[in-house]
Amino acid sequence: MPDAPADLQRLIEAGIRDVPDFPEPGVVFKDITPLLADPASLKAVAEAMAAPFAGRVDAVAGLEARGFILAAPVALELGAGFVPVRKAGKLPAKTYRESYDLEYGTATVEMHVDAFAPGSRVLIVDDVLATGGTGRAAVELVRRAGGTVVGFSVLMELGFLTGRDRLTGVGVHALTEA
Amino acid sequence: MPDAPADLQRLIEAGIRDVPDFPEPGVVFKDITPLLADPASLKAVAEAMAAPFAGRVDAVAGLEARGFILAAPVALELGAGFVPVRKAGKLPAKTYRESYDLEYGTATVEMHVDAFAPGSRVLIVDDVLATGGTGRAAVELVRRAGGTVVGFSVLMELGFLTGRDRLTGVGVHALTEA
Repeated sequence: MPDAPADLQRLIEAGIRDVPDFPEPGVVFKDITPLLADPASLKAVAEAMAAPFAGRVDAVAGLEARGFILAAPVALELGAGFVPVRKAGKLPAKTYRESYDLEYGTATVEMHVDAFAPGSRVLIVDDVLATGGTGRAAVELVRRAGGTVVGFSVLMELGFLTGRDRLTGVGVHALTEA
Repeated sequence: MPDAPADLQRLIEAGIRDVPDFPEPGVVFKDITPLLADPASLKAVAEAMAAPFAGRVDAVAGLEARGFILAAPVALELGAGFVPVRKAGKLPAKTYRESYDLEYGTATVEMHVDAFAPGSRVLIVDDVLATGGTGRAAVELVRRAGGTVVGFSVLMELGFLTGRDRLTGVGVHALTEA
């Protein structure tokens, strides 16, 4: 059940295009770049992704790379700081690392150990919730750094991939579902 | 000559830490994550990077990945859309491609051919202007898509790398210099 009102959902649906056979044959990619390119949609999406968490977020953790685009505006909207969760080897200082399974092999994400003060309330933001692998790794990173995860806010949830089930105990806020 | 007033420059300097020997021995990496994590600094930086271009930008092109973090808030500040310039192979639809030289080898960046309407006024945003290779490639991508580059706005310029010299005809706005 998507969390955005009907008019915002129509705006979102108009801004997302299906690109067949990307990144591989048989996959239909949900391309959000038309939505991001529309000033009114970008603003409405950032506000709606932030709204349920107003007044209870110290830091917004954005997941590389598309998550960065939405997480920074959400952080500003909430008066919070921005924290990057990056692919392995990109962050320069001391990090926590978490690996997760992909269809073939594994991937690793990192967050600086001093990304936020212990006890901080942290909202995790990404563009799409798919299998939940990155999301779950991000939840672990935030907890290892002494933060409380106040929620996981995404533009779109791919419900058929059941990523939500991997995020036990974390409230998922998705503006729309595909 | 940095473009930010002295008080903002002090805020920025306090939020950037030197990490020695990253990404390789002998290099001192300028880590902006403490700045991004501070809500007041994040807001002040986004506003200051946008201010000189108010009223004359249709789209803000952010350079993957750290450029995304600043470009999206700058776009919202200007009432403009956001356009990603990405590393090769990441964008799903039809793209323009530009390659540039690295110390060893080359790198390629892409932008969707329909990222903005022809005739759009485009501001390019990144965190740091170093050698100017990515920036120059981004300028070419915007021009090939029929856009006018109104400027290149960065948080920090590494003046000793003389990247500005590779951006002939493009106004560079840098809040601080190192």
